[in-house]
Amino acid sequence: MTLKRSEVKQAQARAADLFSHAGIVLTSQEREGIEIAGFGLGNLDLQGLEIVTYVNTERYCAKELALFPKQTCPEHLHPPVQGEPGKMETFRCRWGTVYLYVEGTPMSPIHAVVPKGSEAAYTVFHEIILQPGEQYTIMPGTKHWFQGGPEGAVVSEFSSTSRDEFDIFTDAAIVRVPVIEEDETGGGLHSHAE
Amino acid sequence: MTLKRSEVKQAQARAADLFSHAGIVLTSQEREGIEIAGFGLGNLDLQGLEIVTYVNTERYCAKELALFPKQTCPEHLHPPVQGEPGKMETFRCRWGTVYLYVEGTPMSPIHAVVPKGSEAAYTVFHEIILQPGEQYTIMPGTKHWFQGGPEGAVVSEFSSTSRDEFDIFTDAAIVRVPVIEEDETGGGLHSHAE
Repeated sequence: MTLKRSEVKQAQARAADLFSHAGIVLTSQEREGIEIAGFGLGNLDLQGLEIVTYVNTERYCAKELALFPKQTCPEHLHPPVQGEPGKMETFRCRWGTVYLYVEGTPMSPIHAVVPKGSEAAYTVFHEIILQPGEQYTIMPGTKHWFQGGPEGAVVSEFSSTSRDEFDIFTDAAIVRVPVIEEDETGGGLHSHAE
Repeated sequence: MTLKRSEVKQAQARAADLFSHAGIVLTSQEREGIEIAGFGLGNLDLQGLEIVTYVNTERYCAKELALFPKQTCPEHLHPPVQGEPGKMETFRCRWGTVYLYVEGTPMSPIHAVVPKGSEAAYTVFHEIILQPGEQYTIMPGTKHWFQGGPEGAVVSEFSSTSRDEFDIFTDAAIVRVPVIEEDETGGGLHSHAE
């Protein structure tokens, strides 16, 4: 399921607000180019992620991530690509709260709510809670997923080179690089509310 | 010339204030461990840099840098190390203003003031001015130096692996990893003002 242009614009505005709350300054070009990842699942507020990629070279990558309240980035891992180990990434919480789940001893209950209807696509439950100033490094090939707290979250991601198109998601329905559908009326925020 | 423990503690407190102004949240452990680089030159306010290293792995590195008003990080380059290309780094200004100088067409006049007494150690004058939200990537092996603006600056550095001990400074007097001298009185901020 694709996102409409109007949904993308609305999500970009919400994400820009979160970044601004967190004291993160973006250029106008960066704000207009915020990547809205709906993963082809058709319910961005439930499962999605908002991304600004600052730099992605053959050696390193840095991104700023926004999560809406209770929005979940679905479970995935970063496999080896062209003989190189999978992506290694460090999440540093800048604002809000992040519930992060990785492989390891499962915890129960957990603080996050597994997205309804997608329960089978969540299989790792070792919980790490990140508050502002706290960080965690995810080793290559480790399954992980994460969810914004009650107010959402802003997270800096420092990593090796990012090759999102190779990510392996537990949910086979996921499309990592989806197409945006133009609104029939020609787009604009108002059409989303119709 | 070494820094005294009391000078280090005072500089850590000033840097923590700059990070706080910029909306950067640090843990108390990070605040207490802020690296104060005086480069062995004996005048930290003139030539120095304050650093929090978030993560430094074999694949990538991320740091938060603070510059006091008009404080300069002296000219240097990152050479190849053990067969790997030199460090590549992206500076993203988060707060204040940074005057950055790299190899290329020299500009005149420039906005920075070359540190008095060290003029011979500054040889590249291609100017890049970074305001909050602006960034610049320095390619491996490129000589560069940078200075905080009138209010100082906070800069995020995203890079390949950091191996500071191999950095090559134009000024032969520089010691990148200096020893801290304990105050004779046993330390404490008050002894700095004596």
